[in-house]
This record gives sequence, C-alpha cells and structure tokens, in this order.
Amino acid sequence: MSAILQGKRLYLEDLEIGQRFTSAAHILELDEILDFAGRYDPQFFHLDEELAEQSLFGGLAASGWHTAATTMRLLVGSLPLAGGLIGAGGEIAWPKATRPGDRIHVESEVVTIAPSRSRPERGLVTFRSETINQDGETVQVFTPKIIVWRRDAATSDVAIPASER
Amino acid sequence: MSAILQGKRLYLEDLEIGQRFTSAAHILELDEILDFAGRYDPQFFHLDEELAEQSLFGGLAASGWHTAATTMRLLVGSLPLAGGLIGAGGEIAWPKATRPGDRIHVESEVVTIAPSRSRPERGLVTFRSETINQDGETVQVFTPKIIVWRRDAATSDVAIPASER
Repeated sequence: MSAILQGKRLYLEDLEIGQRFTSAAHILELDEILDFAGRYDPQFFHLDEELAEQSLFGGLAASGWHTAATTMRLLVGSLPLAGGLIGAGGEIAWPKATRPGDRIHVESEVVTIAPSRSRPERGLVTFRSETINQDGETVQVFTPKIIVWRRDAATSDVAIPASER
Repeated sequence: MSAILQGKRLYLEDLEIGQRFTSAAHILELDEILDFAGRYDPQFFHLDEELAEQSLFGGLAASGWHTAATTMRLLVGSLPLAGGLIGAGGEIAWPKATRPGDRIHVESEVVTIAPSRSRPERGLVTFRSETINQDGETVQVFTPKIIVWRRDAATSDVAIPASER
C-alpha cells in the first residue's frame, strides 16, 4: 500500500488477492440524474417523478448506466494503476435503485490475478467493485477484468506516457 | 412483429426466442466523447489525442461507458417493451474500441424467456445486444436480463402508466 501513500501508480507486481481500495463519495443530485437520463436513458421512471411512482421503482430512480458511469469516475480516483484503467468487460448487476440525493462510494477488491502468457508485459486482474449508498446498501456490483502492466512495461515499446507511470 | 409495426408496446406473450430488433444509428462525435470522458471517465486515452497514441488504444477512444450509455439510448428506441426497459444486469464486453466519428447501431436478439414463478405478472428475458460500428465490427456485447410484463399486468396493481402500455 506504500505505493498509494507515495502517490505512485501501481503495477502488476504491486497487487495481491484480497487487496482493497475505497473511493471518495459522490452525491447523485436530481438535476444530474435528469440530465443523464435525458441524454442516454430517456424513460419515464428516470425523468418524471409522478409517473415514476407508478413504475416498479415506486419513485424516480437514476439510470443504471448513470450509476455505472459515476462508479467509473470514482474508480479512476481510487484505483491508481499505471497506464490507467482499461477494462475488457465484466459482469454488472444493479440489486437496488439509486435515488436522487444518494451518496455513493465504491469499494474494490482484487479477486484474481492472471499474468498473460502471450504478453509478458501485462496481466489481467479481476476486481470486484461494489457501489454502496449512504445506508450501506449495495446499488451496483461490477466485476471488471482490467489490464495491468508489469513494471517493465513502463520503459518498453508499450509506452505508457511518463505522466501515467 | 405486427405489434411494432402498429406502434404498440410488447408484452411477455409477444416475445419468442430468436426474435430480433435493430436500432437506429448514432455517430459518436469527438466533442461528445470528450464531454462524456470529462464527466465520467477522465483518463488520458479518452481525453488527449496525442497522449492516447502512446496508449494501448493507439489513439483516442471513447469510454466503454459512453458506448454503453449510447447503446442504452439506442435500445430505448428499438426495444418497445410495455412499461419500459428495466434491467437487473448482465455481462458486458468491449471487444474493440469506439473511435471519434464511429457510426454505431445495436442489434438485439431474444436469448431466453423465463416466466417468473413467484411473480405471475412478469418474466425475465435475456437479450443479447451487439453494438456494431460502420465497418460491421462489434464494439460491445451486452446480455441484459430484462423484466418483461405479461399483458395482464397493464391493468393490475403493478400499474404501468397508460402512456407506457
């Protein structure tokens, strides 16, 4: 964990299974929920408070993709991997809706570490990232597979920009 | 498919395995990519064209969450389910990056249909939604599990608003 304390980026060699990372918190305000939904998920339960009461959500809820995008923002600030966070994908679930005014943060844990056989300069690390609201309820679980570089990669042809090492 | 042609919403009874839905297309402009990344995924390969050339992407790429959010927008316009699209989650993968100027559309197929035992008014339908660029390359695969109502639900206590039936 000293690498984080020193503000340095982490490489594959710095990660171990069970290692945890906690993000800052973000409050999802109503305006932001309406703006995101209007652009990307224009459905009545994300846009209209009165109609939303007649939906499965029983009231206005943020788009799951808004929760996902906000989670990404929080991950960028809390998972200081060298070269940035590049995900190949993963499983995503929204066990509970996010509501206007919810204060969410993300807790991530290293689940698996798989050095690449064909690409010695990198590995694939699976994280389990839970997005949690102010009541301790999990609103999203995402288990991304993320490309993580070995320390050698910083000076190889892979060329991680100096500012991202 | 007559329900779509007539502009009506679809219920569980209207779906069958293998049924396909094709969305309109959307061009992801550079400005939009930079705006989304600045809000939700502020990493150098999404924001800085010069630095991005030194990344795994070899040039500026849209955030995967931007591709996902845009896919949702296209799904809202192409999967006319009664009561809207409410997803419990699913597997997401980004096999290829989305680039400025890419023209993407979404092709969705019904994969499984599971009527609920405990909730007779609904079922859980798995779709496979592929987001495809102008060259026919798949940039995202998402397999959401979506709640779909039976026709009865429209007039039951579940209360789908009249405008969403």
